[in-house]
Amino acid sequence: MTVLHSKFETELQVRPDDIDMNQHVHNSRYFDYVLAARYDQMERCYKMPMEEFIKLGYGWVVRTAHIEYKRALNLGDRFMVRTWIHEVFSDGVEVRFEISRKENGKICCDGYFAYTMINLKTGRAETIPDWIVARYSV
Amino acid sequence: MTVLHSKFETELQVRPDDIDMNQHVHNSRYFDYVLAARYDQMERCYKMPMEEFIKLGYGWVVRTAHIEYKRALNLGDRFMVRTWIHEVFSDGVEVRFEISRKENGKICCDGYFAYTMINLKTGRAETIPDWIVARYSV
Amino acid sequence: MTVLHSKFETELQVRPDDIDMNQHVHNSRYFDYVLAARYDQMERCYKMPMEEFIKLGYGWVVRTAHIEYKRALNLGDRFMVRTWIHEVFSDGVEVRFEISRKENGKICCDGYFAYTMINLKTGRAETIPDWIVARYSV
Amino acid sequence: MTVLHSKFETELQVRPDDIDMNQHVHNSRYFDYVLAARYDQMERCYKMPMEEFIKLGYGWVVRTAHIEYKRALNLGDRFMVRTWIHEVFSDGVEVRFEISRKENGKICCDGYFAYTMINLKTGRAETIPDWIVARYSV
Repeated sequence: MTVLHSKFETELQVRPDDIDMNQHVHNSRYFDYVLAARYDQMERCYKMPMEEFIKLGYGWVVRTAHIEYKRALNLGDRFMVRTWIHEVFSDGVEVRFEISRKENGKICCDGYFAYTMINLKTGRAETIPDWIVARYSV
Repeated sequence: MTVLHSKFETELQVRPDDIDMNQHVHNSRYFDYVLAARYDQMERCYKMPMEEFIKLGYGWVVRTAHIEYKRALNLGDRFMVRTWIHEVFSDGVEVRFEISRKENGKICCDGYFAYTMINLKTGRAETIPDWIVARYSV
Repeated sequence: MTVLHSKFETELQVRPDDIDMNQHVHNSRYFDYVLAARYDQMERCYKMPMEEFIKLGYGWVVRTAHIEYKRALNLGDRFMVRTWIHEVFSDGVEVRFEISRKENGKICCDGYFAYTMINLKTGRAETIPDWIVARYSV
Repeated sequence: MTVLHSKFETELQVRPDDIDMNQHVHNSRYFDYVLAARYDQMERCYKMPMEEFIKLGYGWVVRTAHIEYKRALNLGDRFMVRTWIHEVFSDGVEVRFEISRKENGKICCDGYFAYTMINLKTGRAETIPDWIVARYSV
């Protein structure tokens, strides 16, 4: 059964401290942009912010990160971070993302993150309860 | 003669990568918030963005930075960065700032930055032309 | 023809500002550790530092980054960043890396970066001259 | 009574991700260099690492930070961070620092940090016990 998940969007702006010696956004900061968008969307779109996971004793760790760089973002640029759940595993999810320049909609980079849900006490992977899967199946 | 300069405001939001092991915004990031606000206000409020200085062969370097920390910002917080020119010297300016939590207006930190205008070719301090002083005397 | 490239190693230490709210090294900082190791090894091991590429009008941009996270690094940890050229293309290279904790040699993360060599003036991909390929064929 | 405190030194190296669009170390990173040196020296020189404070239920927060910039550090530079306790208050300390380029010993920046010791449970300032003052009176 194929479940199609919604794509959500967060608008952000490049900060001067994101720019590196090559005069564009430092490669590793795109990572942080996706992280910022996920936190925003977990709360605003899925109605289950990270704080709620933590209260339940759950955390999320990144297992794999993959980014394809296409066009650099520059000083002052506004951009959209679109993310969506591509696949749900018993103990994790694969989240795909696309970052595009707001001005012209052109893709700057895309890729995916595989996250594992862990039990904060043991630090070990945990099966995601059905009710959480349901909450994230929008 | 005392010149009173306008106070300008930029609204920003804490990014998850700004949070450090103490669970609040890392001390040095407030620096970057002031920098982001200045770039925004140079363009939006003074109508003379950093790019224009660079085209003219000018740059700005920080000579002194001073911050008084009062209350920490936390994950997801929205905040206002208010900055204003406190004094203009022949080759620089002292900019004062206040960062306050948007939700309740309480001051999180305040302080000042002394900047020197340099000639990008020589790297040396340069007298600020009158027309630039005028443009920043709002 | 298979060319086997040398593996080089750089020792680094976690800085307190690398630690995030989860009390271990922030995911995107591993990226920066690999970057630091490459700069060190370009100079020390390949005898052709980044500055030399820039003088020749060349630059390197990241096209793809891929990281598999295994074990987190913590405050104060010393670690080894091992990198090697896996494949050379006409206009780029695939660099593989492994980061391991110094104390016990256990792998913390591994992955690869695909870099493209560009002409700094045009910003476009450039064929890597044979003499540079030779210099990096150690 | 004047107590003269020892000056301790930590050697560090600029990482490529510390460099900003002005091609030298980003202003706020000097902050992080001092932090890294303090963590190193608390453990190595005072024989009381941050972890020990935390186990005792104590933490340290920055109340004031002040930096005077003199000469910028550049890509690859090795530098020394010298710090010493200038004054001990009932609930805090003023730590002074100097960062100098290793190659020529020239001062890059100096300044001070005022830290307050807090009780991690209440978040409030706490009187520093005599035995800790003694330990830091080297």
